[in-house]
Amino acid sequence: MKPRISESEFLERKHKVQGFMEDQGLDLVVMYADDRYVYGQAFARWMVDYQPQFEAAFVLVPRKGEIAIVTGAESVEFALCTSRCKNVYAIYEFLHPDEDYPYCETRDFREVLKLLEEQSDISIANIGVAGRSFIPYDLFKRLLELFGNDHVNDVDEEISMLRAVKSNDEIEVIRYAYKIADHGMDTVYNNLREGISERALAAEAEYAMRKMGSEGLGIELMINSGPVNTSPILSRTTFRELQAGDLVVATLAPRYEGYHGAIGRPFGLGKLPDEMKRYIELVMFAQAETVKRLGPGITGKEMDVISREHMNRAGFARNFAYSGIHSVGVIEFEAPILSSKSEVVLQPNMVFSVDIPLFLNDWGGMRYESGFLITEAGCEPLSQWSENYMKQL
Amino acid sequence: MKPRISESEFLERKHKVQGFMEDQGLDLVVMYADDRYVYGQAFARWMVDYQPQFEAAFVLVPRKGEIAIVTGAESVEFALCTSRCKNVYAIYEFLHPDEDYPYCETRDFREVLKLLEEQSDISIANIGVAGRSFIPYDLFKRLLELFGNDHVNDVDEEISMLRAVKSNDEIEVIRYAYKIADHGMDTVYNNLREGISERALAAEAEYAMRKMGSEGLGIELMINSGPVNTSPILSRTTFRELQAGDLVVATLAPRYEGYHGAIGRPFGLGKLPDEMKRYIELVMFAQAETVKRLGPGITGKEMDVISREHMNRAGFARNFAYSGIHSVGVIEFEAPILSSKSEVVLQPNMVFSVDIPLFLNDWGGMRYESGFLITEAGCEPLSQWSENYMKQL
Repeated sequence: MKPRISESEFLERKHKVQGFMEDQGLDLVVMYADDRYVYGQAFARWMVDYQPQFEAAFVLVPRKGEIAIVTGAESVEFALCTSRCKNVYAIYEFLHPDEDYPYCETRDFREVLKLLEEQSDISIANIGVAGRSFIPYDLFKRLLELFGNDHVNDVDEEISMLRAVKSNDEIEVIRYAYKIADHGMDTVYNNLREGISERALAAEAEYAMRKMGSEGLGIELMINSGPVNTSPILSRTTFRELQAGDLVVATLAPRYEGYHGAIGRPFGLGKLPDEMKRYIELVMFAQAETVKRLGPGITGKEMDVISREHMNRAGFARNFAYSGIHSVGVIEFEAPILSSKSEVVLQPNMVFSVDIPLFLNDWGGMRYESGFLITEAGCEPLSQWSENYMKQL
Repeated sequence: MKPRISESEFLERKHKVQGFMEDQGLDLVVMYADDRYVYGQAFARWMVDYQPQFEAAFVLVPRKGEIAIVTGAESVEFALCTSRCKNVYAIYEFLHPDEDYPYCETRDFREVLKLLEEQSDISIANIGVAGRSFIPYDLFKRLLELFGNDHVNDVDEEISMLRAVKSNDEIEVIRYAYKIADHGMDTVYNNLREGISERALAAEAEYAMRKMGSEGLGIELMINSGPVNTSPILSRTTFRELQAGDLVVATLAPRYEGYHGAIGRPFGLGKLPDEMKRYIELVMFAQAETVKRLGPGITGKEMDVISREHMNRAGFARNFAYSGIHSVGVIEFEAPILSSKSEVVLQPNMVFSVDIPLFLNDWGGMRYESGFLITEAGCEPLSQWSENYMKQL
């Protein structure tokens, strides 16, 4: 049996959010969700296992009683069928303006709010908003009109932090997501050959991951080769055909039951120049040094400085192009992000990706990224894709 | 050689948009783009072949001179490497708030606007905005602050309509996208068997399409089976294993060079009940009747009524759950949408998907969707996935 998040865990999450609302004096939390590749589904998937596509949605969590979803006309049955939420309504705000839905019962948003007030026997005055930075202008303006500027509070960070320490169910699901990612990386490695295109190699990796149950990707699958395509931090997988001596970089972030595994590896096709081997050894070593310190009690900014300084000393300050250590969960790159400003104290059962970037060079670039579970004693690797890695060099 | 949009076509598009701006007295058009699955890339991909991921972006088209992109720090090299635009700047508005980019030159948005004014020798007062309905609150507020409410004009529909009649390059690319979709559907059909899960079947179809060069999907790949999973309009592909007698519905929308092919077909696994066969014959017939009228000169609302009334007469008014006829291009569901309000007059070289929905039944649901190119004489099918279709019933 493949792992899955249990029904009781969704109930616990609801109690967690409602407890937070009690503390903060909030009557309703509005979580925004859409079909954005990296961030879209996060709050909705975590709260009620809902992954929107095409139409956006709000998940509405009242301070007591049952959660509701408001969305567009095409998504009502979809949300009822796939999410853990049994109260789903179409409201005008989420309809496609050029479409007809003559047979869908579409409601006024205020009517749904009134329904929630009655069902939960509450009066809604103060609201919290999660995913605020993605909410389209008209939709957020509507929230401000309905509740008044002083009653709309940004709770994005607080709700994200409620997700930071993972439950047993989540850890099992995430472990499996990393197994899928590992299998994808095996497949990349086993299919490295002259003449195969980046896109064909990506097809093999994706197929292998889908067959293990991956439902999609947390960020586009990136297979890049040669100096031009490996240099940027982000990339589009092209029709470029691999050549002997190429540097090839693979970044995989499969999604399974809403959760991600994320790994990145540089490879050589055939014999790499010694210089390139030294770069790979450098990022591996920077990751290993970082991981030695990864464990409960350390702060985000203490973590950030380790790999950053390691790369600085090697002369690659500007090529360590972003904050490489971040959480992994319903987003493949989620809070807490361990930047130079991060005061977060690491705790057991948090999951971190340690990503060592070495981008934006004339010769190209690479990331060396693996996932780790924080334990009482330190941390534990979630990806097995390290053993014998150096043999291929 | 696989078809591709030529450099000269991007130049023509720029002139088309700048001509429109001249007519409208606009100094700058701001096109919003992000990594939303269905709508995110549309304007940016069409204008400069840019497909953002992770960070959002604005494409800035001045009324004369060169186009620029403003985005986040991680996307600058990515956009330079993959798009047809050579002026890319990081601005503060698009940075991830929890990240550090100490070595990226990040600019004030006003500084970039000033640069554009100098380069193009223009003064920017009136702007048009495309993709407005997706722009996050703070970002759109920033545009209103910078230019003033009276100078910010919604040009979404106008720019979308500039895309409606497809060029020769576009038609070749779209033809290939439909070939990919057809091959995906062949693969679904050839892999239908008892015990295979919806997700495994989706893996086979996606793999087949990726190997032909698909770069991804315009909407999640939907493979659904049985009464519960086929009933909603949208769906999540599950681990449900196919059983003899199942209705199976496949919806495929691969993306190739930014453009889509979109087809949907219901299948029976083994012998379907007679009732179900009649439903399939009904949607096929409704499509055929609709396609007879599909051609230049007819209006959108005239088209809409044909299939809708056909399904109404059969007693399925509420199951024809949305406007089924829509354009296909850089969005798999793009304007013009032929709803009951649509005054659009069809022209040669427009591309339409004729999608006959029959959802929300106790027994499940289905769509029968194929693509057509409008010709001088009428229309021409873009999907070959019709021949011998009935044999399987």
